[in-house]
Amino acid sequence: MMGFFLTIEGCEGAGKTTAKKVVLQWLSAVGREFMETREPGGTPLAEQLRNLVLSEHEESVTDTAELLMVFAARSQNLSQRIEPALAEGKVVVCDRFTDATYAYQGGGRGIDEQRIAVLEQLVQGDRRPDMTLLLDVEPELGLARAKGRAIEQGGALDRIEQEAIEFFHRVRNVYLERAERFPNQYVVIDGSQPIPEVESCIIKALQTRLGSQ
Amino acid sequence: MMGFFLTIEGCEGAGKTTAKKVVLQWLSAVGREFMETREPGGTPLAEQLRNLVLSEHEESVTDTAELLMVFAARSQNLSQRIEPALAEGKVVVCDRFTDATYAYQGGGRGIDEQRIAVLEQLVQGDRRPDMTLLLDVEPELGLARAKGRAIEQGGALDRIEQEAIEFFHRVRNVYLERAERFPNQYVVIDGSQPIPEVESCIIKALQTRLGSQ
Repeated sequence: MMGFFLTIEGCEGAGKTTAKKVVLQWLSAVGREFMETREPGGTPLAEQLRNLVLSEHEESVTDTAELLMVFAARSQNLSQRIEPALAEGKVVVCDRFTDATYAYQGGGRGIDEQRIAVLEQLVQGDRRPDMTLLLDVEPELGLARAKGRAIEQGGALDRIEQEAIEFFHRVRNVYLERAERFPNQYVVIDGSQPIPEVESCIIKALQTRLGSQ
Repeated sequence: MMGFFLTIEGCEGAGKTTAKKVVLQWLSAVGREFMETREPGGTPLAEQLRNLVLSEHEESVTDTAELLMVFAARSQNLSQRIEPALAEGKVVVCDRFTDATYAYQGGGRGIDEQRIAVLEQLVQGDRRPDMTLLLDVEPELGLARAKGRAIEQGGALDRIEQEAIEFFHRVRNVYLERAERFPNQYVVIDGSQPIPEVESCIIKALQTRLGSQ
């Protein structure tokens, strides 16, 4: 069986967590082996880099340093977990990947897309997701949900979640542009729908792309 | 007064510490303001990245991840410390910089030089050292010194210092090649000489390049 690289993307509060649950349940139900990971992160070193990316620092973090830390973490996750799992024929379910880098560091921070593409090639070679589930909501709704969740969990928003609303509009626009540009990769799911509708969209997409494998 | 960017390079045990002392004493003696830093490192975040680069990990660290962490740290050191100090007209004395990346990650690890050059441009723009003091010794002598120092200090060799001797021969070769290619930047100092000779070579170089500024 061929490995399959599935990524889940979307802004804060778009419903990625729900989507991941649905995906993992479906994979279990059809008896398909999978490996779950997230970015930045996925290995002990990559998780340490994730902490550096997401936590507050006394110094201001350059856009370039943030970008390089994200790709350093990605290099570890790819070599240690993603590539081995794909080689074993598993479905890799990854919470965010390089599309998020284009959206957040490219769209959000304004880093030139070509610079990201150079790093993508350096770190990934030709590896790209086979399928990306993009959970799409208006940033206002998504952030309200993310804040509600942070309050519920007694936590706080991280360094990136604290960006202004315009930041998340730029993030969303890049996601939607990429979905248009890469229609074979992307499945866009309206995350403002009631959860049962979101679930059935996801299951339909999984059946189409993975059901016959 | 124009800022001046001076870097000190060389393999383990080549005499960088001695060289730095001589440089800082000379700058103090002539009343020139300076700022001292090191790479990877120089800011709190960059020092955290340095720790990740130099410490042992249970997972194996990809060459690319190491390279990206080094350049992420460099981006922080440049924006927070090096560029501001140069703008104030100071002499920046930096223990290792991008020449070390070409030598260690390029020569040592075998990463293609062009890949490093792309990151150099991304992180530094046109910023290059005005002068590089290369302390050059046979790797066998340098490593014997570095090990002696580690034992004296009750410490251990770090992740990179534990590489095989061939690694350091490749590192040294890249340093020497770059010294030939960039003769206006590099001053090569024979680090196997007695300390007083090393000192007088350094002082001569400083007088030539900085004495008349």
